[in-house]
Amino acid sequence: MLLKLPRTIEWRNGRVRLINQLKLPHDLEYIETDDWRRVKEAIRRMEVRGAPAIGVAAAFSLALAALSMSDGEDVERAVGELRKVGKELKSTRPTAANLSWAVDRVLSRLSECTSVREVRETVLEEAFRIQKEDEEANVRIGELGEELISDGDTVITVCNAGSLATSYYGTATAPIYKAVERGKKVKVLAMETRPYLQGARLTAWELSMAGVEVKVVTDNSIGIIMMKEKVDLAITGADRVTSKGYVANKIGTYLLALVSKEFNVPFYVAAPTSSIDMSISRPEDIEIERRHEREVLEIFGHRIAPNNVGAVYYAFDITPPKYVDGIITEKGIAHPPYEKTLRKIMSE
Amino acid sequence: MLLKLPRTIEWRNGRVRLINQLKLPHDLEYIETDDWRRVKEAIRRMEVRGAPAIGVAAAFSLALAALSMSDGEDVERAVGELRKVGKELKSTRPTAANLSWAVDRVLSRLSECTSVREVRETVLEEAFRIQKEDEEANVRIGELGEELISDGDTVITVCNAGSLATSYYGTATAPIYKAVERGKKVKVLAMETRPYLQGARLTAWELSMAGVEVKVVTDNSIGIIMMKEKVDLAITGADRVTSKGYVANKIGTYLLALVSKEFNVPFYVAAPTSSIDMSISRPEDIEIERRHEREVLEIFGHRIAPNNVGAVYYAFDITPPKYVDGIITEKGIAHPPYEKTLRKIMSE
Repeated sequence: MLLKLPRTIEWRNGRVRLINQLKLPHDLEYIETDDWRRVKEAIRRMEVRGAPAIGVAAAFSLALAALSMSDGEDVERAVGELRKVGKELKSTRPTAANLSWAVDRVLSRLSECTSVREVRETVLEEAFRIQKEDEEANVRIGELGEELISDGDTVITVCNAGSLATSYYGTATAPIYKAVERGKKVKVLAMETRPYLQGARLTAWELSMAGVEVKVVTDNSIGIIMMKEKVDLAITGADRVTSKGYVANKIGTYLLALVSKEFNVPFYVAAPTSSIDMSISRPEDIEIERRHEREVLEIFGHRIAPNNVGAVYYAFDITPPKYVDGIITEKGIAHPPYEKTLRKIMSE
Repeated sequence: MLLKLPRTIEWRNGRVRLINQLKLPHDLEYIETDDWRRVKEAIRRMEVRGAPAIGVAAAFSLALAALSMSDGEDVERAVGELRKVGKELKSTRPTAANLSWAVDRVLSRLSECTSVREVRETVLEEAFRIQKEDEEANVRIGELGEELISDGDTVITVCNAGSLATSYYGTATAPIYKAVERGKKVKVLAMETRPYLQGARLTAWELSMAGVEVKVVTDNSIGIIMMKEKVDLAITGADRVTSKGYVANKIGTYLLALVSKEFNVPFYVAAPTSSIDMSISRPEDIEIERRHEREVLEIFGHRIAPNNVGAVYYAFDITPPKYVDGIITEKGIAHPPYEKTLRKIMSE
């Protein structure tokens, strides 16, 4: 049985259609547009989020811009226009690695185009290829990771490294979906993931849509949860992995790794090779984004602390490799020592 | 210098005055009443919360009930009435240990009273004594604990084991307040403490009111906080401590203990001896309250997950003694092995 998951982002008859993630979990609304600027806005407003999904959205935005050009236009001028579009796209979410990566990849294909028609075809082709490769990586991570899951298992995850963050199966969720497709019964615990609540809002939504049993837990309760409940496996995504296996991911990941070690629950990271950064090794090489304290201190417009009290808000944490039992990539599962195994995978 | 803290609960000219904690952190409103039923309601609605504060409120409620009796009444009938009042009080928060303890302690003094006048005086006297002892325990915990804090330190805490939960200095906050009184500069990080946000709402409020610099952090960010920021000491309260030093306290405490160990930050528990339960030893002896999933899934009236998705909500977790560097009681600081040191303290 193949699961039918909602398509986070799609190309449909010359238009881009994407799920408006700000409306989840209560309304499933799509944004459908042939205007590249609307896609840019969707990235900026976080109507689409998740690094791989943002990369695909940016590529599709470039394709819409190319399609709006007429055959009569000068090719160099057209490419110049697309470079400007690419620059605008990159400025929306400066820290999302996949965004610049996708824009640069599409633009790099245009230097040898000799007509606007060829530019249009090349941009569209490369955008489709980016989406296809992401979807294939999802599938492969799912197939490799599902072997870690036994029938009847309970899996815990943090944030949303799911279908909504990628082109189809997600990264951390891919092994779960694949296990379910292969007939295993799997329960999921979704850490709610303050302050943005991606676990409660997005992961719980997409798993329940796919018919997977899921329950929400507060981020601070994972210690007693593992003490009192049956938890068999922890899987998270990754925003960046260093050559030594340090994993930067949404805050809470490190705590989940510590608690998993405490209760001998295997802790795995699902990460396409595009998230592995062989140019850095140490945790201090990773720049951790600090965000505005308002995002912590206001919930649904209510200020939760006195007006004169601030907050310290790091958006990501870093899990040391000693707590990571394996890193599931589309090219295989890496085990410690990661210095060796990641180098091998990345050089294949 | 002595700090001037807001009085959570006070007896004033035959009336009880208490801070309405549901209005915090934005409004400081008092409930002032001579009706024992109104105090009972305040306990039930959690307008007053924190085990020691609830104990004092219950004793004062009994005192108000006694004061409303006239000299002409039959003494046995009066005592019978007070027993009924005590029963009603106990039913408001069945799990709060200090509530039954305070009610029973007051009622046990009435058996030898020979007049209603004597009943009134006895109840009031015992209620004052309960409050005074609690305040003295706060002070003593503060004096003993403040020696752990150096000038310029940053202390992290969870939930509210503060002035608002007790009669004056709090338990976990007492060492902080005493250190500040002795001229030390102390910064505090308050874990927000989902789902009820006592850290952001109450601890941040009372510390900032006292002029102590405090910042809020999400519960899931304590790993990266300790990696990136200077944190010198962790102090939490306790709902119950077993004879072997297992500490039941608000969810998140266990995670704070694990992270503290990881970064060699001393982790202390501040607990009056009334929280130490020598009748139990193992973690599985502690009953952990599970509360309604709605409390996790709804924030300010907004449902954070799809309607068909539930939650698992334990209100407390259990920290093993190996992560606890010391337990600060009003009779001294216990260090491992707790089996010996707690027994010694409790038998003094």
